[in-house]
Amino acid sequence: MNSLAIYAGTFDPITFGHLDLVGRAAKTFDRLILSVAASRGKGTLFTTEERVALVREVVSVFPNVEVDSFDGLLVDHVRERGARVIIRGLRAFSDFEFEFQMTLTNRRMAPDVETIFLMPKEEYSYISSSSVREIAAMGGNAGLFVPPSVASALEEKVRATEKP
Amino acid sequence: MNSLAIYAGTFDPITFGHLDLVGRAAKTFDRLILSVAASRGKGTLFTTEERVALVREVVSVFPNVEVDSFDGLLVDHVRERGARVIIRGLRAFSDFEFEFQMTLTNRRMAPDVETIFLMPKEEYSYISSSSVREIAAMGGNAGLFVPPSVASALEEKVRATEKP
Amino acid sequence: MNSLAIYAGTFDPITFGHLDLVGRAAKTFDRLILSVAASRGKGTLFTTEERVALVREVVSVFPNVEVDSFDGLLVDHVRERGARVIIRGLRAFSDFEFEFQMTLTNRRMAPDVETIFLMPKEEYSYISSSSVREIAAMGGNAGLFVPPSVASALEEKVRATEKP
Amino acid sequence: MNSLAIYAGTFDPITFGHLDLVGRAAKTFDRLILSVAASRGKGTLFTTEERVALVREVVSVFPNVEVDSFDGLLVDHVRERGARVIIRGLRAFSDFEFEFQMTLTNRRMAPDVETIFLMPKEEYSYISSSSVREIAAMGGNAGLFVPPSVASALEEKVRATEKP
Amino acid sequence: MNSLAIYAGTFDPITFGHLDLVGRAAKTFDRLILSVAASRGKGTLFTTEERVALVREVVSVFPNVEVDSFDGLLVDHVRERGARVIIRGLRAFSDFEFEFQMTLTNRRMAPDVETIFLMPKEEYSYISSSSVREIAAMGGNAGLFVPPSVASALEEKVRATEKP
Amino acid sequence: MNSLAIYAGTFDPITFGHLDLVGRAAKTFDRLILSVAASRGKGTLFTTEERVALVREVVSVFPNVEVDSFDGLLVDHVRERGARVIIRGLRAFSDFEFEFQMTLTNRRMAPDVETIFLMPKEEYSYISSSSVREIAAMGGNAGLFVPPSVASALEEKVRATEKP
Repeated sequence: MNSLAIYAGTFDPITFGHLDLVGRAAKTFDRLILSVAASRGKGTLFTTEERVALVREVVSVFPNVEVDSFDGLLVDHVRERGARVIIRGLRAFSDFEFEFQMTLTNRRMAPDVETIFLMPKEEYSYISSSSVREIAAMGGNAGLFVPPSVASALEEKVRATEKP
Repeated sequence: MNSLAIYAGTFDPITFGHLDLVGRAAKTFDRLILSVAASRGKGTLFTTEERVALVREVVSVFPNVEVDSFDGLLVDHVRERGARVIIRGLRAFSDFEFEFQMTLTNRRMAPDVETIFLMPKEEYSYISSSSVREIAAMGGNAGLFVPPSVASALEEKVRATEKP
Repeated sequence: MNSLAIYAGTFDPITFGHLDLVGRAAKTFDRLILSVAASRGKGTLFTTEERVALVREVVSVFPNVEVDSFDGLLVDHVRERGARVIIRGLRAFSDFEFEFQMTLTNRRMAPDVETIFLMPKEEYSYISSSSVREIAAMGGNAGLFVPPSVASALEEKVRATEKP
Repeated sequence: MNSLAIYAGTFDPITFGHLDLVGRAAKTFDRLILSVAASRGKGTLFTTEERVALVREVVSVFPNVEVDSFDGLLVDHVRERGARVIIRGLRAFSDFEFEFQMTLTNRRMAPDVETIFLMPKEEYSYISSSSVREIAAMGGNAGLFVPPSVASALEEKVRATEKP
Repeated sequence: MNSLAIYAGTFDPITFGHLDLVGRAAKTFDRLILSVAASRGKGTLFTTEERVALVREVVSVFPNVEVDSFDGLLVDHVRERGARVIIRGLRAFSDFEFEFQMTLTNRRMAPDVETIFLMPKEEYSYISSSSVREIAAMGGNAGLFVPPSVASALEEKVRATEKP
Repeated sequence: MNSLAIYAGTFDPITFGHLDLVGRAAKTFDRLILSVAASRGKGTLFTTEERVALVREVVSVFPNVEVDSFDGLLVDHVRERGARVIIRGLRAFSDFEFEFQMTLTNRRMAPDVETIFLMPKEEYSYISSSSVREIAAMGGNAGLFVPPSVASALEEKVRATEKP
């Protein structure tokens, strides 16, 4: 079996928590695709292109990880790429609730696609992209929670947003 | 990658919920081992041998699933069998809490072993071995929740236990 | 006792999960009123009138179910209609938390009104109006989660929204 | 419709929290049966007969409430009594999880029986029979959590248990 | 040790639940600062100045409680004021999740600052500022959940907002 | 204010998670008492005396921490020692539920005693005394979760228990 899994998300921006999961998935499956969900006017801080670029930069160390983006239903994207496995992270029980509903909804639409959950390292379990954005906006040190290149991009974005 | 995963549990007895997970894991990994945890005087209804026999009977339809038992720490068993992946089921958020603690404890003892979670079909999500045992003990129809051979074994065990 | 209960919600749109609850409540109480909460500029996809019309169409099979709408506090509406019982669905524990707070708040304002909770069929427990709206917007098959007339209305609404 | 509901439990012993629920159910349904589950060697503090007697004494103020006991599956008892509704209390989200599983299990065995949930007054939400037993055993004032007759019975039972 | 704690929040508006916590914290620490988080365009109902004024009025009975406001990261504010303890209220388990993530994030940024949790009186545990705002907007009696001066301010604000 | 807090528990045995909390409490209050709950035939692995001795050894580094034991209700012990504050750890949301009920029960019995919650370092959040006992019994390395002296005592106890 040549196994292929997809780890999808908004990654706005990608954090140490996401990267920890990438490492776990990359050693469990033969190939992994990181798929960035298009914004669809949801008001992400970074554009789809920017998020893809940041993700690409920080996962380049994993030889069996590829980066992609998608617009529309995740299950359609998974099928188009020929994958059968969706990877999700479970940081906490609030994740669980949401993931439970999403998994059952996806399974109803695509019974052949299996969703698999992984737990991040406990010291990354509390990091969320939204709190990282907020910390950066308030002048906090985002570098504690994201790789240096992402921290730089965040600072620049914050400066650009605050300009009059 | 020839992937090998281990799905361990007490299986006292194995239910439709467990079997649903076996099916999901068996199509995601090349090989799957179902490992029955030894009783260790914990007062299981069925002996380790009986549980292994019942499991073996109901999973015989899966060509890539093997049955084993173990006594001691799960992570030691996983390493002995040369596996790197532990499969767990997440039926509900109370599972999640317990699984979260167990996964992090196991990871501390065996950082190279990854734990992977799967969600059963929603109509099996509420079945637990303990409620099946209780229903059988009260004369209810256990066959709604377990395969026929397991239901027969349960009825026989209940009759044997109630004998004066 | 001629019992009258009220099942209120946004119903944007009504799903198989809501309908399952209507059936359970309709057989438990003599009369049931489905009350659609007015939008109040909250940005519902369907207008109050559209939601009432969709609800009315799909619950017409229940002889003892009536459809109404209300604007303002639910407890005021319940009193105006002469009811003493509010019906709520509990799909999952995240519902529970919110329902707990709302019930205690309503009870403080109207101690004579009792709130009663029902659980939907497990295969409907993960359906939410918001995920149905999202699936329809992305071109997915909403008909898996809502009755045909609602699915048609959703498709039409999505087409109307996307027009330039 | 002449509605009949059953509120079953161990009631070891009955607390202010249980009584609050009895009051809510008694005003929502025409008739209510309080059914005490037989001990079945589960090591209750009070015998089935003692628990029935205590329950009978404290619910005598409700004209439409009857007391019964049962041994076996609750759904069988509900059918024998000709009821269609099971009443359950939801004190907290840990209750919810357990209730969710029990309700779905009961529904599988008896699809015609509906389970209905009520929330106790918030100041009773934290009372559990087990903590009341523990407080009495340690010489605390159980009268804060149970009616006077139950508090007396608890004190007497504790004295009897501690005798050499 | 002359202990100083900070209880921060949006307080939009301050409720009986918040006040209960203020009382508990004020008797546990030598000095307590109530710090109102600046709005930062988050669309609070009351301006920062209005919220500070309402808080100041209702906590004036506590001799060791001071009112302040801050803009930016809480941990920076805590350090500026020379405090080492952050007070948080735990109303329910949904709070817990959020608080858990926020506490660990703050701890990563300021390891010397300790977060301490208190539970409000159970009859205030379900009150949230957002539901109070909604009740006031719908013409309900906010005075059940907030002090008289806050209720008056809410009514006035609602009238002002509804003016054409 | 010379503040005195009590951190009570079974400590069967004390873990790195408990010790992390001791450190946090010891720097927040002037004096801290660690109070070991007597066994009362609950089948602890270590006797009350053994647990007190192990706790005393590992907390001797904290100059303002004292060790005690108690038999009976915690609130009675707290009053006898002249304390007003109970310290509790919140490792996860399952703790929260239990703690919520215990805190409200204690508060009803002793309204003048305040319970305060602290969160352990995330890497200790999953350690429980029961899993440590189980790991030791199965020959695992308990030294990953408890101090060396406790690990030695565990090994010795396990050997003594297994003797024929």
